[in-house]
Amino acid sequence: MSRTDRDMVLGVFFNYTGHHVASWLHPEACADAGVNWAHFKEISQAAERGKFHFIFFADWLAVRLASEAALSRSSQYTAHFEPLTLLGAIAAVTERIGLICTATTSYNEPYHVARKFASLDFISGGRAGWNVVTSANPAEAWNFGKEKHYVREDRYDRAREFVEVVKGLWDSWDDDAFVRDRESGIYFDPGKVHTLDHKGKHFSVRGPLNVPRAPQGHPVIVQAGASEFGKDFAAQTAEIVFVAPPDMKAAQGFYADLKGRMAQYGRSPDELKILPGLNVIVGETEAEADAKYDFLQSRIHPQVGKEILSTILGGVDLSSYDIDDPLPELPDSDEAQGGTRKFVVEMAKRENLTIKDLYLRLAGARGKRTIKGSVKRVADEMEEWFVEGACDGFITQPAYLPGSMDDFIDLVIPELQRRGLFQRDYRGATLRDNLGFKRPKSRWQEKTT
Amino acid sequence: MSRTDRDMVLGVFFNYTGHHVASWLHPEACADAGVNWAHFKEISQAAERGKFHFIFFADWLAVRLASEAALSRSSQYTAHFEPLTLLGAIAAVTERIGLICTATTSYNEPYHVARKFASLDFISGGRAGWNVVTSANPAEAWNFGKEKHYVREDRYDRAREFVEVVKGLWDSWDDDAFVRDRESGIYFDPGKVHTLDHKGKHFSVRGPLNVPRAPQGHPVIVQAGASEFGKDFAAQTAEIVFVAPPDMKAAQGFYADLKGRMAQYGRSPDELKILPGLNVIVGETEAEADAKYDFLQSRIHPQVGKEILSTILGGVDLSSYDIDDPLPELPDSDEAQGGTRKFVVEMAKRENLTIKDLYLRLAGARGKRTIKGSVKRVADEMEEWFVEGACDGFITQPAYLPGSMDDFIDLVIPELQRRGLFQRDYRGATLRDNLGFKRPKSRWQEKTT
Ligand SMILES: Cc1cc2nc3c(=O)[nH]c(=O)nc-3n(C[C@H](O)[C@H](O)[C@H](O)COP(=O)(O)O)c2cc1C
Ligand SMILES: Cc1cc2nc3c(=O)[nH]c(=O)nc-3n(C[C@H](O)[C@H](O)[C@H](O)COP(=O)(O)O)c2cc1C
Repeated sequence: MSRTDRDMVLGVFFNYTGHHVASWLHPEACADAGVNWAHFKEISQAAERGKFHFIFFADWLAVRLASEAALSRSSQYTAHFEPLTLLGAIAAVTERIGLICTATTSYNEPYHVARKFASLDFISGGRAGWNVVTSANPAEAWNFGKEKHYVREDRYDRAREFVEVVKGLWDSWDDDAFVRDRESGIYFDPGKVHTLDHKGKHFSVRGPLNVPRAPQGHPVIVQAGASEFGKDFAAQTAEIVFVAPPDMKAAQGFYADLKGRMAQYGRSPDELKILPGLNVIVGETEAEADAKYDFLQSRIHPQVGKEILSTILGGVDLSSYDIDDPLPELPDSDEAQGGTRKFVVEMAKRENLTIKDLYLRLAGARGKRTIKGSVKRVADEMEEWFVEGACDGFITQPAYLPGSMDDFIDLVIPELQRRGLFQRDYRGATLRDNLGFKRPKSRWQEKTT
Repeated sequence: MSRTDRDMVLGVFFNYTGHHVASWLHPEACADAGVNWAHFKEISQAAERGKFHFIFFADWLAVRLASEAALSRSSQYTAHFEPLTLLGAIAAVTERIGLICTATTSYNEPYHVARKFASLDFISGGRAGWNVVTSANPAEAWNFGKEKHYVREDRYDRAREFVEVVKGLWDSWDDDAFVRDRESGIYFDPGKVHTLDHKGKHFSVRGPLNVPRAPQGHPVIVQAGASEFGKDFAAQTAEIVFVAPPDMKAAQGFYADLKGRMAQYGRSPDELKILPGLNVIVGETEAEADAKYDFLQSRIHPQVGKEILSTILGGVDLSSYDIDDPLPELPDSDEAQGGTRKFVVEMAKRENLTIKDLYLRLAGARGKRTIKGSVKRVADEMEEWFVEGACDGFITQPAYLPGSMDDFIDLVIPELQRRGLFQRDYRGATLRDNLGFKRPKSRWQEKTT
């Protein structure tokens, strides 16, 4: 496929102070980003000037489970804005950029989720997207009256039904239901409202939704599950999938696998964009990039490093080891880490790495790959992944904010545009338009045509 | 009490196209207000220029139950923005005005509600308020997997526990928990975070909340229940109470009753503002006000009028009666209508009113009182209620938007200011400051002092 057949999709993942575990220690980072609205207004408008397709927020319904010593040194996954209220605010101060956030299907009700994303879609003029997760943090259960998190199979079973109900609710009103005709005094056509009457295994929801059909018909559906369940679910429903592959080969395998699963659900591969997370440290020169990277790395506290490494390994307890020890022998992990533990253990053996070597390599970006170097190096690697069938674009994960995103906008984006890989301006009004997706027809329209 | 002891509190209740049932038929109303963000930006900024203490949104988790013929002619209680996402957006385009919306305790989880209002409080710099309701629309149950709405006693029992949990979650982090000290590398002080560990009849919630303690400590608690349960709940927890008394005498009775109940909960009467709904049609002259009123009244469709009258009477079926018939004999209603049915039936008998006479009198403002007339008449009546112990201010309910609010801002507010009854500017930064309320201490602080 030649470069010009399609655009690279680029999103930016706002992880409060940034994605690097030591981000908040950078003197130019916004340390109180989690509750600083002025900061979010500024970086959202900057992202829009950079022509990113969308802004993304993760979400968790609990404080992260971690040792007190490590957690109290972290700005991430503790306490900060709730993303739907925050995206409402961001919608008011931006015009073109897509607005995606996470809501779990495990500790929510479909009526609330359908309403809030439809509402955000109206406020933003068609820019909303919903990242469907089943909750990665088991502590969420305890905040919702449950003693234990659902096992994966049940989570995805519930998620599938949840998404079906939400989509059904989004179709409650036909696009042209609200005539608002002062002449006849008719506000809406009662033949164009539909009661869902869903009665399923997990949910009973009558409807109709008390929000009209959204500008995009359905807000864009995003997903990030990596297990077999996660991939099937994505093949069936997702329009954007986030992934965190360890290298290009793994990314190509995932890409082919997932796109290959779509046909069985009657979908074409174009209807889904696969976007790996991308951590970039870029400089005008290699040396400049190295210096930026080393500065952040030098700020990682040993306890934080060890704790993140243990999380990346799937919850291994490393507290009794010295950071200069080699990685201890570990049993094989289950599928949950998506091959990450195996990859890390093999790397450590191959290169004879200590615990500290490992966490320095992995902790900064929480186990996700980092590309570091000159503009050319970064753009080359992005281009290679894109043209070699490893992805449809990336979700960039700035190390600290605003600095790392500014670097990307100032240095990398112009180079991608010069190469004809990335849009010079937004092409349409809605997120769907900008992703090249069709506006979904209502299920009621499909039935009558 | 002299006028100058305290300020009249004034809020504005944004009911989409407006409060009059025919509001959307007014040629200057915004007919698609329910999904028109530009409209809300404009009227919110106008309300702030008018120095209203706050904006208020009701909320319902279902389309209103009504006959198709009446509902399809109504712009209200059908389909429109979700208020928390909308207030997020409004927070971004306003600076001083309070932002209050409704969330029911019957079909929600405390963790979600605590988070969203705390987040809104941060986005707005301390301007959030939560209107706690137990759901007036029984159809909500069907959208949340229940066949029947909770009976009132259970609703309030759940509500009491819900609010306790939310307040507990709001105190999860001490005000000074987040030190964000780059020197020591400590982001928060682990001694200043508290796990709620609530285990009650309706909820088990561990905490801590993943939002820091809000600028106001606790967003302002608002309530609108009128039953005995509702009043006790308000006496115990509310800081603002909305009421819809039929006349000044009833308002005085309610005011004395509710303020009198506060002592048993260790609260002083100053800690609660009682605000009746206020429908105003004002003109430079009486004739101008009459003309405005008659225009809207002339737009009420008989089916809409009958249906609203039947709702005001507590669900009486009037479909078999002609609009020129007198009101049929009705059995006494239960406490639910707060005496409204009795009041209406007596008025109809006394004045020999037909169904049409009655709905014209009541339907426009959905059974709530309307003051119509010159600036002097309106200001006099407001002043009388305020100084005679009937209220602490009002929640104004513009008949149509933006017109009726503009009239109130241009004509009534300057007169109230001239009389020394209403603020000429905001006095503080937060909604709490502007209402003259103290910032609540954390329950953990109280324990240690
Ligand atoms: C970029 C990215 C963002 C994610 N965001 C969230 C999130 O916000 N909340 C969450 O609970 N899980 C999040 N996850 C985790 C996934 O939803 C998923 O649970 C995890 O990848 C494990 O896959 P599985 O659910 O198929 O086992 C994210 C994963 C990735 C790669
Ligand atoms: C000004 C005002 C606003 C109200 N807003 C709502 C609302 O948004 N949602 C709701 O379910 N009920 C709302 N109500 C209804 C009350 O919450 C309450 O259910 C009703 O007054 C009956 O009282 P009770 O619950 O004590 O029986 C409102 C009432 C008033 C007077």
